[in-house]
Amino acid sequence: MSGDDLARLAELAVAVGANVQPGQVVGVTAEYDQHEFARAVAAAAYRRGARFVDVWYFDPLVKRARIALAGEDTLDYVPPWYGERVLSLGRERAAVISIRGSTVPGALDGLDPARAGRDQLPFLRESMTVINDRSVNWTVVAYPSPAWARLCFPELSEDEALARLWRELLHVCRLDEPDPLAAWDERLDVLARTARALDAARFDAVHLEGPGTDLTLGLLPSSTWQMARWETAGGIRHLPNVPTEEVFTTPDPERVDGHVRSTRPLVLADGTVVRGIEIRFEGGRAVEIRADEGGGVLQGRAAIDEGACRVGELALVDRESRIGRLGTTFFETLLDENAASHIALGAGIAFAVADEADRSRVNTSAIHIDLMVGSPEVDVTGITAAGERVPVLREGAWQLPAVHEA
Amino acid sequence: MSGDDLARLAELAVAVGANVQPGQVVGVTAEYDQHEFARAVAAAAYRRGARFVDVWYFDPLVKRARIALAGEDTLDYVPPWYGERVLSLGRERAAVISIRGSTVPGALDGLDPARAGRDQLPFLRESMTVINDRSVNWTVVAYPSPAWARLCFPELSEDEALARLWRELLHVCRLDEPDPLAAWDERLDVLARTARALDAARFDAVHLEGPGTDLTLGLLPSSTWQMARWETAGGIRHLPNVPTEEVFTTPDPERVDGHVRSTRPLVLADGTVVRGIEIRFEGGRAVEIRADEGGGVLQGRAAIDEGACRVGELALVDRESRIGRLGTTFFETLLDENAASHIALGAGIAFAVADEADRSRVNTSAIHIDLMVGSPEVDVTGITAAGERVPVLREGAWQLPAVHEA
Repeated sequence: MSGDDLARLAELAVAVGANVQPGQVVGVTAEYDQHEFARAVAAAAYRRGARFVDVWYFDPLVKRARIALAGEDTLDYVPPWYGERVLSLGRERAAVISIRGSTVPGALDGLDPARAGRDQLPFLRESMTVINDRSVNWTVVAYPSPAWARLCFPELSEDEALARLWRELLHVCRLDEPDPLAAWDERLDVLARTARALDAARFDAVHLEGPGTDLTLGLLPSSTWQMARWETAGGIRHLPNVPTEEVFTTPDPERVDGHVRSTRPLVLADGTVVRGIEIRFEGGRAVEIRADEGGGVLQGRAAIDEGACRVGELALVDRESRIGRLGTTFFETLLDENAASHIALGAGIAFAVADEADRSRVNTSAIHIDLMVGSPEVDVTGITAAGERVPVLREGAWQLPAVHEA
Repeated sequence: MSGDDLARLAELAVAVGANVQPGQVVGVTAEYDQHEFARAVAAAAYRRGARFVDVWYFDPLVKRARIALAGEDTLDYVPPWYGERVLSLGRERAAVISIRGSTVPGALDGLDPARAGRDQLPFLRESMTVINDRSVNWTVVAYPSPAWARLCFPELSEDEALARLWRELLHVCRLDEPDPLAAWDERLDVLARTARALDAARFDAVHLEGPGTDLTLGLLPSSTWQMARWETAGGIRHLPNVPTEEVFTTPDPERVDGHVRSTRPLVLADGTVVRGIEIRFEGGRAVEIRADEGGGVLQGRAAIDEGACRVGELALVDRESRIGRLGTTFFETLLDENAASHIALGAGIAFAVADEADRSRVNTSAIHIDLMVGSPEVDVTGITAAGERVPVLREGAWQLPAVHEA
């Protein structure tokens, strides 16, 4: 990484991801030790005319002290001003930039997972409020840390691992293109045409079929297909994820049937890696969950509430995904979920459903866990209400003609 | 410094300074790079049963980006949630621990001082509210950083400077005593007896006389003498400063006459060092200010508002002050003001005045700058309303008999 790479990644987050406007307040959430990037983001935002950049550093090792030492009855407590900050950013119509890429992946190692599970910080439920009311233009970006690089490339030396992570991150962020903004526009236009073509097809269900997978997901009557280029209520375009490679929708949580096998490792928020997942669904419920590794933890998550064993999201990713092509497991959902088509256990995305009546049927849960189930070997087929089967992805390539019309 | 020293300093801050109570929320304000101490403070607070420790890291280099790059009309802006956090800590009856000892003393070097002066962060005026309504048990403590150590001991190598700063800080915090808590109790009892003896004497004025100094400060009829062992409205004792060596009062801002010469360098908030200060007062106003070095900056501060050229505080420090005995200039008010008797230009301390009517006469200003004017060569004499002169400090030793009664 050069200082230049750092500045270009910061500029991408500010200009393309959050699309910071002159006069905006910018809320940045960083982990302790991500200061170099946080400062570069602040500088980039001020250069674009930001009114104020509020960097909130979250320290995983202060959290560790809490999980290790605090009283049992205190672990759910969240200071009210944490949520108030988020809601204030909403009221200010601020820009929000969240930095991923843990600096201490094992911060809670060796502590009681039940205690750790009661403290969801830095996650704040108020974030869902400002996302859903579209009051902030926000983005999530990743920044390489030495510890994260070691996790991705344990076979390399520390320096080599960090250099490789930087190289791959710059690649998947299209910062190795002569004109990264043009490259993003081109890619996002393909995703936009795909979402429109899927909407136009008005599928009643989607069928995934491949090795170990034969799963049909029913859609709600007004489920729509979305890409991750959004607009605030005030009309500011932004990319919630940088990079993004997916189109996604919210299925009917009562109509998921069949079985599915994961095509990539799943990395849970606490760092647990779950490999070789197999799930059988009946009437929307995951009635059987097993895995070659980490299955117990996944079962525990899927039992956390009523909606945790149902599907909240179906996302399709084609073989042009730069993340999928690399084949790297990044142990970071932001990147890994954009490698392949996936389904999410847990909370659905209400705004992907057009009608109020359907929206009340969207799955609700405290979890949202993306399971990668796609690959070039998994065919994706749309099924209309009349029972017609329409190829959507074959060998990882979009089949709907409208996707390829410029 | 050993890990043990770090833990003992953290324990002193938590147990003696803030006196954290079981079930309390603890707000910690740290500078970026003070994470080791912030984490030790968090651990110590959780061990005492804290409900939650909220560490707020302030990044001076994000501030630098702002001062360098942000629009001229934005520099006064403070996000409302910064103050809301402080007021919430007050409503929660929280403990508050502020960590001093800059990690980047020259963070704003080379930038326009006029722009820098418009951004007072991390200072928040809401802090004054919760201090004045005594809703939080708070303390200010120092933590050695390599950059701060270099500033104190430029003639030493970096390692030696840091080791020396640690050694001196542990000494002035009485952590080199076999029983530091007992040593603090003993010292604080002397200061308490001194304050009571000064109150009992009911002086109308105080006279400072020594080389270059002949200054008389009138007191308000209900001025009281205070030490820095306070109680919250709810009865929690705490030490606002660790260490503390002073007793202080609020003089009559209209009755300060004579001249005074500083006995130690003054270090302003922006790092400017002012040496060899001489000030002449007439009717409470500083009518002449000069210095061997940095006089212009001090003159500028004293002209910032109407009250900035008047005296808001008179503090007496005896020769037993461990800071005074060391002779080190720490470039940090928390320590330097406890080295010697001092007067402060600017805002007075209202709660040191008992009657409502007198309180309206307390000096007000946006500044509060402590000037060290005492030494063993400066005699301090109390003057009663009847004109009787009573020795208070001679050769730096308390002269009031009640101070020495156990």
